[in-house]
Amino acid sequence: MGLDALSQKPHDRLADWLADDMVAVNLLIRDRMASEHAPRIPEVTAHLVEAGGKRLRPMLTLAAARLCGYGGPFHVHLAATVEFIHTATLLHDDVVDESERRRGRPTANLLWDNKSSVLVGDYLFARSFQLMVETGRIEVLGILANASATIAEGEVLQLTAAQDLATTEAVYLQVVRGKTAALFAAACEVGGVIADAPVGHIDALRDFGDALGIAFQIVDDLLDYGGSDASIGKNTGDDFRERKLTLPVIKAVALADAEERAFWERVIEQGDQREGDLARAQAIMARHGTMAAARDEALAWAARARAAITLLPDHPLRAMLDDLAGYVVARIS
Amino acid sequence: MGLDALSQKPHDRLADWLADDMVAVNLLIRDRMASEHAPRIPEVTAHLVEAGGKRLRPMLTLAAARLCGYGGPFHVHLAATVEFIHTATLLHDDVVDESERRRGRPTANLLWDNKSSVLVGDYLFARSFQLMVETGRIEVLGILANASATIAEGEVLQLTAAQDLATTEAVYLQVVRGKTAALFAAACEVGGVIADAPVGHIDALRDFGDALGIAFQIVDDLLDYGGSDASIGKNTGDDFRERKLTLPVIKAVALADAEERAFWERVIEQGDQREGDLARAQAIMARHGTMAAARDEALAWAARARAAITLLPDHPLRAMLDDLAGYVVARIS
Repeated sequence: MGLDALSQKPHDRLADWLADDMVAVNLLIRDRMASEHAPRIPEVTAHLVEAGGKRLRPMLTLAAARLCGYGGPFHVHLAATVEFIHTATLLHDDVVDESERRRGRPTANLLWDNKSSVLVGDYLFARSFQLMVETGRIEVLGILANASATIAEGEVLQLTAAQDLATTEAVYLQVVRGKTAALFAAACEVGGVIADAPVGHIDALRDFGDALGIAFQIVDDLLDYGGSDASIGKNTGDDFRERKLTLPVIKAVALADAEERAFWERVIEQGDQREGDLARAQAIMARHGTMAAARDEALAWAARARAAITLLPDHPLRAMLDDLAGYVVARIS
Repeated sequence: MGLDALSQKPHDRLADWLADDMVAVNLLIRDRMASEHAPRIPEVTAHLVEAGGKRLRPMLTLAAARLCGYGGPFHVHLAATVEFIHTATLLHDDVVDESERRRGRPTANLLWDNKSSVLVGDYLFARSFQLMVETGRIEVLGILANASATIAEGEVLQLTAAQDLATTEAVYLQVVRGKTAALFAAACEVGGVIADAPVGHIDALRDFGDALGIAFQIVDDLLDYGGSDASIGKNTGDDFRERKLTLPVIKAVALADAEERAFWERVIEQGDQREGDLARAQAIMARHGTMAAARDEALAWAARARAAITLLPDHPLRAMLDDLAGYVVARIS
């Protein structure tokens, strides 16, 4: 099977298997993002929620719950919760990054303004906790409150690490855990919790989500230096322009000679970026093989994700999650 | 007893009575606003948390719990929760309003930046839910998740109502419930819930907080047109410059003749504000008596707050809450 077939199927197969559940999730999302008093809220959220995101995180929750034999109604609430938290972080990230495109559309803060992005994000965050309360399970509130704190911490850490050439791979990993892996891990874990799965299975699901999230983010950061605008719906070079220290850059800085060091200081630390600098950064990273080295790390995290779920019972959904971990890194293979 | 004595005592007496509890709350706040990985977080929060705010909301929670005979440890967690949610909304409000001062100091977003305000607010919000999870009481999570949704909705509503002369007193009341009364009401209610108070007492506490919050906000809005910079730590005329439709303005617009109507359209709808316009707005409101009318409404809400707690058992704290409702409106009497 070619990489192309591999890279398309796992997500679609998950979506097919979980189709009825996803219909219920989408209905619940539409119902709960409404606001009787403040019509601007659904205007802003619809922009993101209807934009055709992959709904990867809610599918992880649904898959985890179903895989653990859950037959109740609350996996739908938790899947909607996870999507709301994700959407809230995107809205707040739009304020933060001053990025110009998100999912291939103008960001909410260009269509409306920073104010609406902040407040509507807050609204969705509050709504997500209301959904969790409805499940009556305080453990899931604990898991997702912890994830939310880790997300915010990771974003702040990224802010302070940006423009700092002393950023280590360990700090990068913390940032990635915060900005991506924490919600992936929690999305999987709460699916196991709501199904009353054994502790070992819940741990396996969390580890799967964590490793999958890290692989996913490393790949995303690699694509920012190599993907095409069309394929990822965001501008190549965004991270470079925002002077973020992502894995291939951190590795290249560690291997830099004096001239390259001066280059990184100018473009990242001083923010003095000129025509051709992005291409030069790409050339330096290619010379040191840091894109390939970062790719190898992504592959290793994907392998860890796959290893974690071997502890779970045999199930068609387990096979799809396994394939999904392969798909995530296939984007850069 | 003169107004001055009246206006100083209730808050201080509450603080004295609850001194040991407040020490515990402040310790917990300092402990939980720390972040191992992201030192910018306590830098930003300390700025607000240490700024000597009145800690009115956490004292309401402590007072409600003690008044209902609570002897456990978790009223401290809930008081810290309420202060974290309040601080998070201030941080996000700083981004939103582009206001220049908060509690008499420069706002966080001038000392740091919008990014930090958004993300640190998110962090405190997540931390507040972690604190609630520790109490093991899912009802309090429900109450404060609902309050958080109402707060965000109210802020969005205020955003869309700003600059709109068609804003009614009913919309104003909704905005005020969102921006102030929802958290006051929840702060009181969770104190009763954690103490396992009878439903009638919990309802009375919530009604007290709601009415107190509405009185408090009407007074705050009045002071924005008449208080001195020193006494309230924020710039008189902020609401006017931000073109907010607050109660005395809404009442004045309803009574405006053609010339006044043209004035309001220019300064509020078109945002064309010139030297002397604030003084003219004040003069128009004085002519129609709308400041006095709004003051009467604040007094009526304070009376409702006092009436609500007559249902509670006789207790020194009940008397202090009663005095507090008097104090809140004494600022404008």
